[in-house]
Amino acid sequence: MPRALLVILDGCADRPVKELGNKTPLEVAIKPAIDRLTADGSCGLMDVISPGIRPGSDVAHLAIFGYDPYKYYPGRGPLEALGAGIPLNPGDVAFRANVATVNDELIVVDRRGGRYIGADEAREIEEIINNEVLPILKSKYGIDAIYKQTVEHRGVLVLRGAVSPNVSDTDPHVVGARVAEARALSEDAKVTASYVNEFTRLVYEKLSRARFNDKRRREGKVPINMVLLRGAGSLRKFEPLSSKYKIKPAIIAGVALIRGIGVALGMEAINVENYVGSKDDDFNSAFHAAAEALKNHDFVFLHVKPTDSMSHDGDARGKVMIIERVDAGLRRFIEEAPGDTYIFITCDHATPITVRDHTGDPVPFMAWGPDVMRDEVTKFSERDCARGFWNRIKGIDVMNIIANYLGAIEKFGE
Amino acid sequence: MPRALLVILDGCADRPVKELGNKTPLEVAIKPAIDRLTADGSCGLMDVISPGIRPGSDVAHLAIFGYDPYKYYPGRGPLEALGAGIPLNPGDVAFRANVATVNDELIVVDRRGGRYIGADEAREIEEIINNEVLPILKSKYGIDAIYKQTVEHRGVLVLRGAVSPNVSDTDPHVVGARVAEARALSEDAKVTASYVNEFTRLVYEKLSRARFNDKRRREGKVPINMVLLRGAGSLRKFEPLSSKYKIKPAIIAGVALIRGIGVALGMEAINVENYVGSKDDDFNSAFHAAAEALKNHDFVFLHVKPTDSMSHDGDARGKVMIIERVDAGLRRFIEEAPGDTYIFITCDHATPITVRDHTGDPVPFMAWGPDVMRDEVTKFSERDCARGFWNRIKGIDVMNIIANYLGAIEKFGE
Repeated sequence: MPRALLVILDGCADRPVKELGNKTPLEVAIKPAIDRLTADGSCGLMDVISPGIRPGSDVAHLAIFGYDPYKYYPGRGPLEALGAGIPLNPGDVAFRANVATVNDELIVVDRRGGRYIGADEAREIEEIINNEVLPILKSKYGIDAIYKQTVEHRGVLVLRGAVSPNVSDTDPHVVGARVAEARALSEDAKVTASYVNEFTRLVYEKLSRARFNDKRRREGKVPINMVLLRGAGSLRKFEPLSSKYKIKPAIIAGVALIRGIGVALGMEAINVENYVGSKDDDFNSAFHAAAEALKNHDFVFLHVKPTDSMSHDGDARGKVMIIERVDAGLRRFIEEAPGDTYIFITCDHATPITVRDHTGDPVPFMAWGPDVMRDEVTKFSERDCARGFWNRIKGIDVMNIIANYLGAIEKFGE
Repeated sequence: MPRALLVILDGCADRPVKELGNKTPLEVAIKPAIDRLTADGSCGLMDVISPGIRPGSDVAHLAIFGYDPYKYYPGRGPLEALGAGIPLNPGDVAFRANVATVNDELIVVDRRGGRYIGADEAREIEEIINNEVLPILKSKYGIDAIYKQTVEHRGVLVLRGAVSPNVSDTDPHVVGARVAEARALSEDAKVTASYVNEFTRLVYEKLSRARFNDKRRREGKVPINMVLLRGAGSLRKFEPLSSKYKIKPAIIAGVALIRGIGVALGMEAINVENYVGSKDDDFNSAFHAAAEALKNHDFVFLHVKPTDSMSHDGDARGKVMIIERVDAGLRRFIEEAPGDTYIFITCDHATPITVRDHTGDPVPFMAWGPDVMRDEVTKFSERDCARGFWNRIKGIDVMNIIANYLGAIEKFGE
């Protein structure tokens, strides 16, 4: 069976940028490898969800992996957990968390605990909650739990056992309001709501007395004495990619959230040194690892993050440079990959330099391989791909198109 | 009212073929009539189901006739019956059947009765079942039934009356297992399950004693003493094409399955001599019959089979030749058809020469007629049509597009 590489250039699609002579970064970047594949292969435009819809990277990746996000999007709690590297089982309930400051009537004074908390403080908060709060709740409710601080004031709480995601937030979402009581939104969520409310009380009690807060008070900072919970959700039972498309899949992604989604869908995560989703990512190593992985997988997914980050920073030249460095990595891949490898390149959404955020613009799509139709498009860009053979596809079509070339999926009918 | 011809070139869409200079059969075939229509008309690509999905011909034709196969696909039993020329009413239950060899404990020794059974044997099996088994069951259950041997070891059993398709298979699907008891999968299927189980017992009793088995034993062949049933299904109630699209439709198809689907949808089947779905099909006669039929129908569907067969055989030159012979037939049609005739040409799926099986690639689509928009495409092929006016449509859109030109269907809203 042949094999396939799918490269997602995160947020790479763009709009004309004045600084680049009213061209897009893809139009000005010098990328001989990508453009050689483009000239030999066929292109199109892709609506990741549908025209104009602005997807988050999480939603976009669900769609591209073939799982309708309108059906499968589990909300932010579970995605925060996956992003934090906490493996989730269907049935686990995950909440997004904010460490916060409340007064002695539990009125929220600061929803973000002064926002910038130190690494030592984060570690101490995790230790107190995991060692002093959660064991008490475990002995009372029989529910296993993990708390993890992620970035700055943000964290995640995961419950495992006889739990339900149908509980309301304890985060009142505004300063000046009291921490909310979690309410059960369905009959089976009563125990979970009680658990959460007792969590609120215990966290306040234990954090208020924590040593790091003495230090904060001495430094004139507000104490961190509350964890606000919101966005409870559970992963749905996914049919794994391996059975859905009859492939053995692997994922290379520096960004924990994307890797977490891949793992939840049954992909084997391959770690690459110096590939963490930063602007210094080592694309040569990532593409080398992809070529290696294709020796014992038939589908490898490779995620490129900094194209998106450069756009969020409004750095057009930086984005061009990232594209050119990706191209060098791809050149290496082409030399090293098995001969029967198909290559697909697209984006999870546009992040135009001028907008500095995700937009719902269509993104370019390219397919290359032994028997892929060759069209007249010779350059991988938003405008060029619009004239290609694939015309216009959707994110949800990508894996079917790939599986169609791999020849593994069964016919519908006879 | 104007009229329309829809030509389906079965499996004609392809991928580049080395032997044809990396072109597709449609790109190299000399087809002046088709290409003249193309130059005058407008083109697009069509996803028969959706991008990448590999349809069987049955599923593809349901979609193209406007019936969502995810809703209307009845399973293989009913389609096998339609293919065998047994007209089905909604409510009839059809099973696929295998003649097989079992030992005296009803353990399956050969699921296909040695596979190659002779025409005489097939006739004798049909006679025994229809004359000695089914009448006994009719008098006991009041259920009408027909058994027909189709190709080699395959057959079909159709039940009519107070029957239900919700019964499990008697075919254990593996050698070495006992013939399964049919189980009722719903309350209303109990009688049908009893019927099927008594069918199993009677078939074993009657076939075991059949004369042709004496002969087989003398020749050292395994006896054929069982009929294994599977894939019970019923046609759903279809709204006939005539009321769905306000047309009077006819079908010309050599392949019994396609003709059967057409008849089930209310199309009048027109028989054409030497047009049986083989590589020697007489396209001149078929197109002549289509032109004649348009004198008293306003929609004629013409199915061309051997484009698909040549691909299954990996015969690129043969496929080109079939396309050229179809073109000659179409030339005749253009001369003979009434002046207000629209012509639509497309495929039910791709069957690439390199794959020798159906794939989920998009297929070319062409519309021609007095007031059809003319675009810049001058050649009917996969790549050329990608640049056309219609852009990208789905199989389920075809009949609506046709009915839109015929002007017969009602507005949605006012």
